[in-house]
Amino acid sequence: MALPISLQDIRRAADRLAGVAHKTPVLTSRLANERSGAQVFFKCENLQRVGAFKFRGAYNALAQFTPEQRRAGVIAFSSGNHAQAIALAAWLLDMPSVIVMPNDAPPAKLAATRAYQAARAYSEVVLYDRYREDRETIGRRIAAERGMTLIPPFDHPHVMAGQGTSALELIEEVGALDALVVCVGGGGLISGCAVAATGLQPDICVYGVEPAAGNDVQQSLARGEIVRIDVPETIADGAQTQAPGQLTFAVMRERVRAVCTVSDAQLVSTLRFFAEFMKQVVEPTGCLAAAAVLERVLDLRGQRVGVIVSGGNVDRVRYGRWLAGDEDGVSR
Amino acid sequence: MALPISLQDIRRAADRLAGVAHKTPVLTSRLANERSGAQVFFKCENLQRVGAFKFRGAYNALAQFTPEQRRAGVIAFSSGNHAQAIALAAWLLDMPSVIVMPNDAPPAKLAATRAYQAARAYSEVVLYDRYREDRETIGRRIAAERGMTLIPPFDHPHVMAGQGTSALELIEEVGALDALVVCVGGGGLISGCAVAATGLQPDICVYGVEPAAGNDVQQSLARGEIVRIDVPETIADGAQTQAPGQLTFAVMRERVRAVCTVSDAQLVSTLRFFAEFMKQVVEPTGCLAAAAVLERVLDLRGQRVGVIVSGGNVDRVRYGRWLAGDEDGVSR
Repeated sequence: MALPISLQDIRRAADRLAGVAHKTPVLTSRLANERSGAQVFFKCENLQRVGAFKFRGAYNALAQFTPEQRRAGVIAFSSGNHAQAIALAAWLLDMPSVIVMPNDAPPAKLAATRAYQAARAYSEVVLYDRYREDRETIGRRIAAERGMTLIPPFDHPHVMAGQGTSALELIEEVGALDALVVCVGGGGLISGCAVAATGLQPDICVYGVEPAAGNDVQQSLARGEIVRIDVPETIADGAQTQAPGQLTFAVMRERVRAVCTVSDAQLVSTLRFFAEFMKQVVEPTGCLAAAAVLERVLDLRGQRVGVIVSGGNVDRVRYGRWLAGDEDGVSR
Repeated sequence: MALPISLQDIRRAADRLAGVAHKTPVLTSRLANERSGAQVFFKCENLQRVGAFKFRGAYNALAQFTPEQRRAGVIAFSSGNHAQAIALAAWLLDMPSVIVMPNDAPPAKLAATRAYQAARAYSEVVLYDRYREDRETIGRRIAAERGMTLIPPFDHPHVMAGQGTSALELIEEVGALDALVVCVGGGGLISGCAVAATGLQPDICVYGVEPAAGNDVQQSLARGEIVRIDVPETIADGAQTQAPGQLTFAVMRERVRAVCTVSDAQLVSTLRFFAEFMKQVVEPTGCLAAAAVLERVLDLRGQRVGVIVSGGNVDRVRYGRWLAGDEDGVSR
């Protein structure tokens, strides 16, 4: 069965993103190599625009809108990095955006999203009460009224292809890898990266990492069909998805070697490692892949390993307490 | 009067450091540009080996030792980044090192310094009681006994030339700048950077930034002679110097346009800015130059501005509390 995206799609996405997305740095650390026994290359998407890889997929999707779609604009549901990514991409492409967010979203995320929309006519954040309203109903109504196009956070070929450009850039910069380790939420990032990596090197091993509390993809791959779980309790808020997408699951089945899990305590330990030894602020979700490598959940001794550091957007106060050890970081 | 170092010395230092020191990334931030009104290029020496620019000068100095000097090795007094820089440079160049540190130095710094010395014969950390012993006496005795060469933290031409490679790299990467802003402790970094920058662009304005509590260089430049102050109380522990060096002062007089100061509260605010919006862990001393730009202590509107981010070595717990706001960060 043909996969929903190809290496060629990812190369085209890279052309669209050239000069728009940051070509993020690749960092290395002697201590990370010692801890893992591997030679590790960290692709720092925490330094991407909006602080996360999500900008790649959002911009790649919006850049392919028809003139009519552009005029009407884009709508997205998200309280996370996807919201800001869509708002910024829409602003850059001069189109209206509506972001549907719960009214209890962190004020900083609201403000950041609105700041990206600034000065664009018809752009707004629409708030809803997540205990009393259904965001899909609200979204569909606005989309219908205004003729807007919905861009989902992961289950869309253009989004997936955009995310894959991070792995493409990494391998083009550092050369062939034995393994590529990527966090898994809905699967948009890992499916794009897996198609890029296996397209360049058919024998590369692509591993996914989920929070232990929410291993919907691990279960789905084991079962051979999409498994839906309750909203997981984890500090990795970007991986609190309940199920992979249809398209991302199709890619992961074919191109991901295995999915492992890490605990919230391992995420905090990795977040501290990044701050102390690599001087990087990484959000808990962005620590998933690195945690599996540094804590040797995956045994990659002697291998050349790419790790995608997916993002760095984290509440400053909460982050500071995790660093200081004033909060255990595991319970919520 | 001829200056103690030239652009040519800095170019030669860059050749010695090629493939040994990291060519650190230059980061930009739209929000930093908005806040400052300038176009700002941050040279991230927090991502340098040992987490600070100090590695550049240390390695450049040790790489020029004669064979006899190499056999006997190097000695340094430092409880800060210079200690680790000398230890690592000595290790890389296969020579013994002795680092004289106070016995109340942070355990993490001690451990890091010892880790860099690992497996090198005759390398050690020598502890002294700073309330009862004089480190210079201890150092001179060891140096004499073992024939070791002392490398001071800033007042040495090879050290200054090595530090200047950071500005050379920055300007070579981003092109001509209107201004370069650099933190000032003993003046090693800024004097190297000023010679590099004015060597490449005679009309560039080089500004120094000191903590408000310890403006020994500002006073010295105003007075036209070296002024010695009490040990300043500031969180910028890398700039707690009491006076500039003879050599660094000679360069600063000729090549630095002005020195301004920032408060500890401005340093904490800048440290938070780096974490939230640029995902970088920067130590208080490393925030000095950026604070002057972001808080508009210097008015650089409309200019292309280079900022040296000097280092990222900071106690994790203390840093976490500054981020969380659980400690005011100003008092000690």
